[in-house]
Amino acid sequence: MRTSQLYLSTLKEAPAEAELVSHKLMLRAGLIKRLGSGLYTWMPLGLRVLRKVEAVVREEMNRAGAQEILMPTIQPAELWQETGRWELFGPQMLKIKDRHERDFCFGPTHEEVVTDIARLELRSYKQLPVNFYQVQVKFRDEIRPRFGVMRAREFVMKDAYSFDATFEGLQVSYDKMYRAYSNVFSRLGLEFRAVAADTGAIGGSGSHEFHVLADAGEDLLAYCPTSDYAANTELAEALAPTAPRAAPAEAMRDVETPKQTTCEQVAELLGIALQRTVKLIAVIDAEGKLVIVLLRGDHSLNEVKLGKVHGIGEFRFATEAEIRDAFACPPGFLGPVGAPAGTRVIADRTVAAMSDFVCGANKPKYHIAGVNWGRDLPEPDVVADVRNVVEGDPSPDGQGTLSLCRGVEVGHVFQLRTKYSEAMGATFTDVDGTQKPFEMGCYGIGVSRIVGAAIEQNFDERGIVFPQAMAPFALALVAVGYHRSEAVREAADQLYAALQAAGVDVLLDDRNERPGSMFADMELIGIPHRLTIGDKGLAEGVVEYAVRATGAVSKVPLADAVRHCQDVLAG
Amino acid sequence: MRTSQLYLSTLKEAPAEAELVSHKLMLRAGLIKRLGSGLYTWMPLGLRVLRKVEAVVREEMNRAGAQEILMPTIQPAELWQETGRWELFGPQMLKIKDRHERDFCFGPTHEEVVTDIARLELRSYKQLPVNFYQVQVKFRDEIRPRFGVMRAREFVMKDAYSFDATFEGLQVSYDKMYRAYSNVFSRLGLEFRAVAADTGAIGGSGSHEFHVLADAGEDLLAYCPTSDYAANTELAEALAPTAPRAAPAEAMRDVETPKQTTCEQVAELLGIALQRTVKLIAVIDAEGKLVIVLLRGDHSLNEVKLGKVHGIGEFRFATEAEIRDAFACPPGFLGPVGAPAGTRVIADRTVAAMSDFVCGANKPKYHIAGVNWGRDLPEPDVVADVRNVVEGDPSPDGQGTLSLCRGVEVGHVFQLRTKYSEAMGATFTDVDGTQKPFEMGCYGIGVSRIVGAAIEQNFDERGIVFPQAMAPFALALVAVGYHRSEAVREAADQLYAALQAAGVDVLLDDRNERPGSMFADMELIGIPHRLTIGDKGLAEGVVEYAVRATGAVSKVPLADAVRHCQDVLAG
Repeated sequence: MRTSQLYLSTLKEAPAEAELVSHKLMLRAGLIKRLGSGLYTWMPLGLRVLRKVEAVVREEMNRAGAQEILMPTIQPAELWQETGRWELFGPQMLKIKDRHERDFCFGPTHEEVVTDIARLELRSYKQLPVNFYQVQVKFRDEIRPRFGVMRAREFVMKDAYSFDATFEGLQVSYDKMYRAYSNVFSRLGLEFRAVAADTGAIGGSGSHEFHVLADAGEDLLAYCPTSDYAANTELAEALAPTAPRAAPAEAMRDVETPKQTTCEQVAELLGIALQRTVKLIAVIDAEGKLVIVLLRGDHSLNEVKLGKVHGIGEFRFATEAEIRDAFACPPGFLGPVGAPAGTRVIADRTVAAMSDFVCGANKPKYHIAGVNWGRDLPEPDVVADVRNVVEGDPSPDGQGTLSLCRGVEVGHVFQLRTKYSEAMGATFTDVDGTQKPFEMGCYGIGVSRIVGAAIEQNFDERGIVFPQAMAPFALALVAVGYHRSEAVREAADQLYAALQAAGVDVLLDDRNERPGSMFADMELIGIPHRLTIGDKGLAEGVVEYAVRATGAVSKVPLADAVRHCQDVLAG
Repeated sequence: MRTSQLYLSTLKEAPAEAELVSHKLMLRAGLIKRLGSGLYTWMPLGLRVLRKVEAVVREEMNRAGAQEILMPTIQPAELWQETGRWELFGPQMLKIKDRHERDFCFGPTHEEVVTDIARLELRSYKQLPVNFYQVQVKFRDEIRPRFGVMRAREFVMKDAYSFDATFEGLQVSYDKMYRAYSNVFSRLGLEFRAVAADTGAIGGSGSHEFHVLADAGEDLLAYCPTSDYAANTELAEALAPTAPRAAPAEAMRDVETPKQTTCEQVAELLGIALQRTVKLIAVIDAEGKLVIVLLRGDHSLNEVKLGKVHGIGEFRFATEAEIRDAFACPPGFLGPVGAPAGTRVIADRTVAAMSDFVCGANKPKYHIAGVNWGRDLPEPDVVADVRNVVEGDPSPDGQGTLSLCRGVEVGHVFQLRTKYSEAMGATFTDVDGTQKPFEMGCYGIGVSRIVGAAIEQNFDERGIVFPQAMAPFALALVAVGYHRSEAVREAADQLYAALQAAGVDVLLDDRNERPGSMFADMELIGIPHRLTIGDKGLAEGVVEYAVRATGAVSKVPLADAVRHCQDVLAG
């Protein structure tokens, strides 16, 4: 394609609303255009990138034996009522009434619809396994859409759903998808990690997330550099300390902490390690009861883990008023010794193994030191893993220690088992003639989010550095002086035609602009390879070849230019 | 692909809800699956067809210089309020409130969104012309969705929008689209006709519809076989009779018509031609006033034309109660002589030229004959073209007479002019430095509807007969005895591989089914060419080649099979 035929619209500055680098660069490069909150139009250049991602996804899905279908975006409420998710899904679901006042939603996901298809279509074990997928727009009404296509309300998703006769079959289907996803992200040239994940609202048993690694990622991932272990920190287990709890060595005593309301401040005042302090978090459980959660001073609460502790369910943090009411003490000085009677105490595994620790005294401006379980307060009601792992924690597989990194979730595979098929009566006739519910898996890729994630991972001060597989064009051919030098025009047109004939995905920049401005545009939009043709080079019979990622520049004889490009594009 | 890898699900009988042939066959062939009223899932086989149509559409749009983008389906109400269409569009628009109670709609079309993009992006005449298009799902909340994908609520549409600096530029853009559309339907192998059309609710000036010709089409088209004239009958002008009105020759007289309430019955009773009778249609105009419309007995009312008569606007038919109230006479005996005082009378051009005609007497069981304008009743208040043209009417271009045919509308091109750009303040800086509104065109193709329309035009008692360009596969290779004969299996696998290597879009039917059942499936799903390989033929070194459309069968040496297929597929 020629720039003269391409709608190209780059900006010097990103609009103020953009926070993330990828969002800024996508707007500056003219890949997307904002229509409304969380709503973006993919402009011609951006759509080229999106389509390249889609193509790789489709190829790998087809190769794995999945079959593409296209389900409606608008779904009848009745199906969601069968699984109970019409109420459970929450305000992210865009609910709609049609002209006859019937209830519908704009599909945030398609488990119900595809299970309805399966119960109508799949009658016998002979028809299994089947894996249906689609590439379709979805809508999730995020409360605060931001980060451009990374957390848009309307987005493009690839969602696949497998149907098997047995759990073993499901595991085979799941492994195929896991491999297909790995192939997709590898082929797209992205640094990624697959991690064990929480199954959340979709439900089911096993689950992995695929993350594109990037500093701006919303998810914190834990992995063991010396083993295969990798998990979202939402899920990553913090093992119990192996050393037994030490015997008490200190007497319990009040310490005055007039202005010290955090563990850090108390540790500093007392001149002790933060690891010797314990903090108290007051939460209200699903039944409305106050619960005390204890964490070591340097640890943070893992809300997903706490929610899974028996009897907790969907909890919330206690308000300051509730705290003052229960403890007769302001936040900042709370502790488990003399806590409100009858309150359940959940101690993190680490806390349960501590002795001689420091915590709030439940009276203003005081903490207490030398606290010991059993001696100064009863053993905790529950000891559980409720904290986030930290760098250096032992790996749960016992093979080393954990490292942390940040990622953008771009894929998620779930073993749903029979959650949806049972709820919707989706059964097949098995070999033995009995009716059994399908063993289901579901597999999502955030197609449009991949574009943002890839940019978060691949950019520099000059703009986007797209991996070749998803770049809008593989090669930019910049013709300097195209409009004033006949020699340049002829040579550029010839080279352009030869590159196209050789199957090179080339953009000829034939605009009447300053060279610096053409280079800047080609760099901003992230084209990985560039040839420059101009009068000066032509006099020597050479063109200039530049690599976007490294900035490396070399001269290539004009006669070898096509072969050179084929070589570098082939990697 | 092999049938063993393809989700194929054919039915002997179509579900009872299907009325149209295309709807029945699409369900029987397993191309689509119903999710709800006007909502269909495209199953793997159907999606292959849809994607082939999309590919041709994209190629021709790109070739015409249009650039693909992807706009959100969900659109903010504010844009529609700027053009006034938030209220005007009517109940076909699916209106939605998000979690913050803000108003949105599921886009039934995208003029507002694309005009918003233009006013943000296109600042100078130097950037023009531009034509943006997308292939996207749309939703129109039809009051009575039916006919499967022909009148679904959610459907796939290609919509394009051109922006020009001048009206002349718009005409060039429009002509390009007109040619691109002609190319699309030609390449898809469809018999189609482009006709002048009413501009309806989209507004603007010039407009053409593209129709796939089919007996089941909802639209009636008029064309002149001896000239270029073609128009939707909604628009086709019925010229005024050239012969002057004859002088009265009869006296006006009552005739008893005890049971005759239609012109046909009256003409039969009196033994006269239907062309000598006049019927009265009572309508209520936009202001609520009764209006009398007179048509010749054999003509039918054209509601679009009537709506355009000055002062009529959005009218409705009078109820029986309103008629009895105004005429003091039941319907069936109404006429213009002695009609309610002060009622406006609109006579069709043909009626205005009649003399000695027969019409209702405004008293039960009577008509009157020998009626003449001027003598027996005042000249009509308005003489206008308000009837549908009929076969044999003179062509409005004066070049012959009209023929009629039925069509399914699959494309529509409009010259919008500045209707939207002015309403939304979408301007550019012209050469002379002044701000001018864009001259816009819009161009739609009902991508999913094309599949239904193509089937309406191409089917027989055995099923669908897809044109090659949109068939799910170009060639079926039916292997008879694949599971019991090693020779067949080897030969079929080899031939399949050779066909694939030769670029033939082939489906190998490797199922363990009776040959008759395999043939029936391949015919039902509409694959245009078939090779059959079996033990008997192999013994002679031949395969059987069959043409779906004609049923013609011939023997082809196995060694020539690939070349034979390449030849027939190349046409």
